[in-house]
Amino acid sequence: MSNFRVAVHIVPRRGILDPQGTAVAHALQTLGFSGVADVKVGRHIVIDVAAPDRGAADRSAREMCEKLLANPVTEDFEIATVEPA
Amino acid sequence: MSNFRVAVHIVPRRGILDPQGTAVAHALQTLGFSGVADVKVGRHIVIDVAAPDRGAADRSAREMCEKLLANPVTEDFEIATVEPA
Repeated sequence: MSNFRVAVHIVPRRGILDPQGTAVAHALQTLGFSGVADVKVGRHIVIDVAAPDRGAADRSAREMCEKLLANPVTEDFEIATVEPA
Repeated sequence: MSNFRVAVHIVPRRGILDPQGTAVAHALQTLGFSGVADVKVGRHIVIDVAAPDRGAADRSAREMCEKLLANPVTEDFEIATVEPA
């Protein structure tokens, strides 16, 4: 078993309303960042996990997203990186 | 002006308590993911912004983090990617 650090991104699914992102976009525009067109706010989750190899760490993180971390109705996830820790 | 999509990661600063991460780690262990050692929960923010070039988009996102997105006392941020949109 080796230790891996897996980074996961969980984002609002396309077409699902993201009120937090809209609020942040408006706040940025009010602060003078006039170039801001759109903001999406998701979660960046970093998991330290022991697994036999990189592929197993990736599969394990995917299963964690499906079972607990992401809401399958409103959110999409992607495994951003899997690195030896 | 071109359009850029900037992804920003905002994470609890090292040494700062991350109760949400601890709760997620325990929940994963309870679900049978016994290899999970530690979890950190941060934010993954994707900003669509108009800027003259990639460097300006990066600098603008950095300023947004300093002024609004990240809490300078408890959080660190990094500009993960800057891509033409």
